[in-house]
Amino acid sequence: MSVLKLGIPKGSLQEATVDLLARAGWKVTLSSRSYVPSIDDPEMECLLVRAQEMARYVESGALDAGITGHDWVVETRAEVVELAELIYAKQRLARVKWVLAVPQDSPIHEPRDLEGKVIATEVVGITKEYLAARGVNARVEFSWGATEVKVPQLADAIVEVTETGSSLRANRLRILDTVLESATVFIMNRKAFEDAAKREKAENLVLMLQGAISAATRVGLMLNVRREHLAEMLSVLPALKNPTISALSDSDWVAVNTIIEEAVVRQILPKLKAAKAQGIVEYPLNKIVL
Amino acid sequence: MSVLKLGIPKGSLQEATVDLLARAGWKVTLSSRSYVPSIDDPEMECLLVRAQEMARYVESGALDAGITGHDWVVETRAEVVELAELIYAKQRLARVKWVLAVPQDSPIHEPRDLEGKVIATEVVGITKEYLAARGVNARVEFSWGATEVKVPQLADAIVEVTETGSSLRANRLRILDTVLESATVFIMNRKAFEDAAKREKAENLVLMLQGAISAATRVGLMLNVRREHLAEMLSVLPALKNPTISALSDSDWVAVNTIIEEAVVRQILPKLKAAKAQGIVEYPLNKIVL
Amino acid sequence: MSVLKLGIPKGSLQEATVDLLARAGWKVTLSSRSYVPSIDDPEMECLLVRAQEMARYVESGALDAGITGHDWVVETRAEVVELAELIYAKQRLARVKWVLAVPQDSPIHEPRDLEGKVIATEVVGITKEYLAARGVNARVEFSWGATEVKVPQLADAIVEVTETGSSLRANRLRILDTVLESATVFIMNRKAFEDAAKREKAENLVLMLQGAISAATRVGLMLNVRREHLAEMLSVLPALKNPTISALSDSDWVAVNTIIEEAVVRQILPKLKAAKAQGIVEYPLNKIVL
Amino acid sequence: MSVLKLGIPKGSLQEATVDLLARAGWKVTLSSRSYVPSIDDPEMECLLVRAQEMARYVESGALDAGITGHDWVVETRAEVVELAELIYAKQRLARVKWVLAVPQDSPIHEPRDLEGKVIATEVVGITKEYLAARGVNARVEFSWGATEVKVPQLADAIVEVTETGSSLRANRLRILDTVLESATVFIMNRKAFEDAAKREKAENLVLMLQGAISAATRVGLMLNVRREHLAEMLSVLPALKNPTISALSDSDWVAVNTIIEEAVVRQILPKLKAAKAQGIVEYPLNKIVL
Amino acid sequence: MSVLKLGIPKGSLQEATVDLLARAGWKVTLSSRSYVPSIDDPEMECLLVRAQEMARYVESGALDAGITGHDWVVETRAEVVELAELIYAKQRLARVKWVLAVPQDSPIHEPRDLEGKVIATEVVGITKEYLAARGVNARVEFSWGATEVKVPQLADAIVEVTETGSSLRANRLRILDTVLESATVFIMNRKAFEDAAKREKAENLVLMLQGAISAATRVGLMLNVRREHLAEMLSVLPALKNPTISALSDSDWVAVNTIIEEAVVRQILPKLKAAKAQGIVEYPLNKIVL
Amino acid sequence: MSVLKLGIPKGSLQEATVDLLARAGWKVTLSSRSYVPSIDDPEMECLLVRAQEMARYVESGALDAGITGHDWVVETRAEVVELAELIYAKQRLARVKWVLAVPQDSPIHEPRDLEGKVIATEVVGITKEYLAARGVNARVEFSWGATEVKVPQLADAIVEVTETGSSLRANRLRILDTVLESATVFIMNRKAFEDAAKREKAENLVLMLQGAISAATRVGLMLNVRREHLAEMLSVLPALKNPTISALSDSDWVAVNTIIEEAVVRQILPKLKAAKAQGIVEYPLNKIVL
Repeated sequence: MSVLKLGIPKGSLQEATVDLLARAGWKVTLSSRSYVPSIDDPEMECLLVRAQEMARYVESGALDAGITGHDWVVETRAEVVELAELIYAKQRLARVKWVLAVPQDSPIHEPRDLEGKVIATEVVGITKEYLAARGVNARVEFSWGATEVKVPQLADAIVEVTETGSSLRANRLRILDTVLESATVFIMNRKAFEDAAKREKAENLVLMLQGAISAATRVGLMLNVRREHLAEMLSVLPALKNPTISALSDSDWVAVNTIIEEAVVRQILPKLKAAKAQGIVEYPLNKIVL
Repeated sequence: MSVLKLGIPKGSLQEATVDLLARAGWKVTLSSRSYVPSIDDPEMECLLVRAQEMARYVESGALDAGITGHDWVVETRAEVVELAELIYAKQRLARVKWVLAVPQDSPIHEPRDLEGKVIATEVVGITKEYLAARGVNARVEFSWGATEVKVPQLADAIVEVTETGSSLRANRLRILDTVLESATVFIMNRKAFEDAAKREKAENLVLMLQGAISAATRVGLMLNVRREHLAEMLSVLPALKNPTISALSDSDWVAVNTIIEEAVVRQILPKLKAAKAQGIVEYPLNKIVL
Repeated sequence: MSVLKLGIPKGSLQEATVDLLARAGWKVTLSSRSYVPSIDDPEMECLLVRAQEMARYVESGALDAGITGHDWVVETRAEVVELAELIYAKQRLARVKWVLAVPQDSPIHEPRDLEGKVIATEVVGITKEYLAARGVNARVEFSWGATEVKVPQLADAIVEVTETGSSLRANRLRILDTVLESATVFIMNRKAFEDAAKREKAENLVLMLQGAISAATRVGLMLNVRREHLAEMLSVLPALKNPTISALSDSDWVAVNTIIEEAVVRQILPKLKAAKAQGIVEYPLNKIVL
Repeated sequence: MSVLKLGIPKGSLQEATVDLLARAGWKVTLSSRSYVPSIDDPEMECLLVRAQEMARYVESGALDAGITGHDWVVETRAEVVELAELIYAKQRLARVKWVLAVPQDSPIHEPRDLEGKVIATEVVGITKEYLAARGVNARVEFSWGATEVKVPQLADAIVEVTETGSSLRANRLRILDTVLESATVFIMNRKAFEDAAKREKAENLVLMLQGAISAATRVGLMLNVRREHLAEMLSVLPALKNPTISALSDSDWVAVNTIIEEAVVRQILPKLKAAKAQGIVEYPLNKIVL
Repeated sequence: MSVLKLGIPKGSLQEATVDLLARAGWKVTLSSRSYVPSIDDPEMECLLVRAQEMARYVESGALDAGITGHDWVVETRAEVVELAELIYAKQRLARVKWVLAVPQDSPIHEPRDLEGKVIATEVVGITKEYLAARGVNARVEFSWGATEVKVPQLADAIVEVTETGSSLRANRLRILDTVLESATVFIMNRKAFEDAAKREKAENLVLMLQGAISAATRVGLMLNVRREHLAEMLSVLPALKNPTISALSDSDWVAVNTIIEEAVVRQILPKLKAAKAQGIVEYPLNKIVL
Repeated sequence: MSVLKLGIPKGSLQEATVDLLARAGWKVTLSSRSYVPSIDDPEMECLLVRAQEMARYVESGALDAGITGHDWVVETRAEVVELAELIYAKQRLARVKWVLAVPQDSPIHEPRDLEGKVIATEVVGITKEYLAARGVNARVEFSWGATEVKVPQLADAIVEVTETGSSLRANRLRILDTVLESATVFIMNRKAFEDAAKREKAENLVLMLQGAISAATRVGLMLNVRREHLAEMLSVLPALKNPTISALSDSDWVAVNTIIEEAVVRQILPKLKAAKAQGIVEYPLNKIVL
């Protein structure tokens, strides 16, 4: 039996990833006594690995696959296959940006003002490449953390990751430029990717992860409507997927069952009611594969 | 774009209200750094305001709408529109009573025995009105909290809020009378109520809140039954709403899908089984608009 | 009105039992001030009783029914009716084993090596019976807890309960034999069992408990499929229950709704997609009575 | 036996007060089941009372004595005896100020700019008196809390309590004026004060409370010094109290034992060493009565 | 090197015992991974053992010494040496009583009313002996815990341990009689007691434990007084130990240093001040060996 | 006024350092809103800086002084002045070792076996230097944390920090060699060190820190002894410092006051008692400057 060695990102993404795997159908059990989580699938083995080091170890073959940020694939220049993005829209696993930022009252206003300055960042490689592409010479120092409080005392600028920019604003920083956009990615080792069994396993895993991600922001909607009002009612529904329309015992009525974005329910539901839908019921979903 | 300024009650109702808004479709984010919560709807702004002060600020127009107790509308004599009651049946946002209570062994047995006594309460206005209507003269003192422990050392009687009376009994108090019944209400400023856009926004918000409240105590029930047993089976179902009956491929059978109170499932389900229903499945709901 | 006096196991099973009752439809409220929980059913009364003592008090009639381990029924030799097993598959309320265990490097390799030795256990009766049946004479000492750390300093062997054996392995113990298998059981007093009203109440309670247990490891699956692919698609579904197949407005398509084990979804779902199922949606369940 | 009924302030001062009483020698035990704390002294009884209501109940004689803020004595215009201030210098029980504050960018710059404006405050009486003394007419509204976030949306200015002003600055408020300075005070009922037994009990309690307060910010210092260097060494010591100088067996040396402010140790100790003190030892104290 | 094997009571006494050992000078480190605590003394080894089982294992020689309750020595009829009582006066390690108790409204009023009744208790042996001495026949059932809530539903009376009786009163129980008084004791195996090295080690340990216990309720008091007031001042001091009186440089004054019960400081200190003591300082102690 | 800019190590040393500063006499207040702690000394400013980066920023002059590990001074090759070691003996701030370790069953037995292997470590520079000195070529990879679980899957050996080796043993690692010993050090920028005011400030700070460290493991001991037993009694006391011997009123007796290591009290105290010391009292200390 082929076994897929999967790296799970240790640290800030860990809990969200274990939770996502659970919703996808795999139970990962972390033990305080060991750093090797157990997983309830004989075809898989897990290892907790820092997101920063994931691509390096997937590249070397120590792992067949891993979940990490695209940014760290770029920073470590690892040669791996990015199988899929995993955009989990609620707060975690989401898209992030690495931005170049300076204090609000800094005299630095564009990248070239950084000439001869000190920049603190966790992504030294990405930052150097960014500067090189713009012909700027600056000293890039590796930062062990809390980078956003290093300016202006310890550095002139920083390159730091942010989701919404709120932490940067709270530290009174001004964003000059976006250095790199990144998202959580599912990566594979090149050799493992060419192994049919491992590739199928990985693709099924990604299918289930995306099914769970997809369900997390969507809900099911059931309602009844008279046939004569069906068309009007359907015109209100967003076109995510054709709704399932089924016959009822009372042939004047049909039942409609569909999937919509949770975020638009508050707009759609009053309109459905206005369009004479009855018995409108919203219910939660676990997974969606359209 | 019209923006609805909504007051969210700070304190004991806060968490339940934010949770209810989330289930209704609005994500309110409280920050430890600020008392102005953010909400994921550009057509709304929120402010955390004490339930006691809500009606006052809705009346003055500082807020367009707010969620508070009917009791505080009465106490502050604020001129506002009560758009809807929000009776959330599980422990919070529920109906409450302000009761007149005395120690179990007090010589006071009816309101007129209060003549010349000291009454401690948070609702000084309501209490004075209650006494005036009965022609009783008593000193009503404002209580800053922990009112139920003030008798008999610090006061002769209290007017205090209670849901089930258990806290009063635990403090060995005897209830003499109900002074006011109250429930959580959604209130609007009179002017905002006449503004068509704000009114529609508020009414849609109330529709969604009530949809979420309604779903919290109900569940969906699906089952299959042979056509010949359908009538018997239906006689067992409570008449909350007509069930949806749909044809199955096997024309001897029909599928029944309905919504019932969660609290009666334990009584209905054994009867449904006795009435030859098969494949009975209960599933959770997010919102119901019948 | 007949009232069923139910014993709820205090201690390690307590939270899982209260949670299970909640999912079955009964809300049990524990109070820090009292050991008599309240229950929202006038036909029932609850008492928190140690699992070890439950069978004794059900036998004596102090309780009509109780939830406890089969092991303690055996240990206390109580004459009670075991109405049903309650196998709750996720970690708690599950099957357990009482095993005879010794330190990994112990010279004891089979039960007869225990001749003249000291055995520590919480189940003195069961252990003595086990030894008697094998003609072994050993001193069996009652252990107040932490039995697995008593060897080798304080005892030569132990008889201890285990679900997966992992705690025993962590303490470097070797399992010699299984002394008794046990599961959580619903027991009734013999007289109460012959009382029609109490028996029906208990049986309905068990029906609902098992409905909730059954739902905890299963999910609902809805999908649409063209009639021409229906047979192929159905061949992929496990045969837990016949799926509900219903007609859609578009007569080329049918909707399929079924219940499957959550644990197999990750295997089935890719196959369903391969078999041309569309709009596959997995949703959570509260109760199942097939 | 005479019994002193003492009010302990419930809420923000409660823990610090109970802790101070413990250090003074009285163990107050709060029970979650009752609001009447027990105290290990048959000559005293305690009652938890809100600081805001304390003076009112000490005035009425429901309590003989109480610990509260001077501000609430003023606000309630209670006729009581202020026996002593209890200035506990570390963060709690300390001096506070009620200040008049407006948003940083408010057009209000001095009290008279408040004419016709709305002021929110917990101390309505004090605020009205302040305004009256300055001939300003403004609407003073009672605030149930979170007063500092009421401007500018809900009020034009506030009168709020502050220790260091940091919370006000964090809310971007500008302080216009100090309305009242306040400190924690020990108050007595006038009649109780004239009762010799109660007065002595209260004075001894205050002596012990001040002994504990005094010790909280001071330490003991012991050192040895040659007689010839004694004068130089003593010139370095602050003159809080004459140090105890005792003879040693070796008559060339003396031992010095003294009490100094903990806050100055870091300045004094290097100087003592420079002045040839030896064996310098700082030790903690429980109580000081000089 | 001789090693003393010491049993530390697991459970309710554990934390207080480890804390007491720390104050006595031994650091015991509990590991979540192991039940064998480490101790920073090569001449000792520790084992966590239930108080109920301690005497049994000290008797058998599995342990050389242990800390447990006198009650469990009696209950298990273990032949051990009780080296010392360890009366730790603050809440734990204190004296306790096993009492016979019934519900407040029980018809049982004296031991002989128990004839033919059911008694639940953790100390079956002690209870049987108590009944036998009074010629009463009753069924004594072993209780696994929560004994005080077993009456009246599950038993007619209980024998339960109590410090202050408050838990019994809270459960509305009436105490009929004291069955056994008990305190924490330091016990030794008879053979180990005859081993000079182990005995000396144990005695030194007890000396230090008692030194720490003694210091926990006492404080040091230093003061200065004029020689002429010395006698008067000394007459106020309790006679726990002769105070140390030392000469000061200023020969008119003497310094007094003494140890007194913390509980009497609040009475003594005002009297000392009245007796013209100056610079009174109370300071904390770690250990006292008078 | 000269201001000393002090770096406080963020992370694992942070709490211990803030606590040590408090005991030394400086109150550092961390705010969740800011990374610049406040300190109650106008002659100092603080900044939270990672231990790994401290030496770099002290070298550059961004900080005048800092507390960090000697290891990071070496790793970053920073040119700074190491003013003092701060060996805080209880668990933190203590001496540590960076060790070369491999799995217990690894074929690697000495440094030269590492030829061509992969070593994971946080101290890449120190490790490379260590290998170079031994002529070994190996790939040294920067590890972002959890280094000890990287072998054998992700690396062949590690260089990791350890205090007692217990974490390494728990991960079944074998220590091959010590690469570097390290302790917490107080470092200064070279220029700041030559500034008389800053240097004096730093030296006084170090004096106080060491005074607090010194007191943490020592206690005061007071006792009385008859003159005739003084010599014998003194022979038992360890020679840390000459004890202070003072005359008592009763000239047959002397009082002895001394400082000893807390760890030896349990050995010394029984001997002192045997040597006829009386009224032996151990008391806690805050600071010691001998």
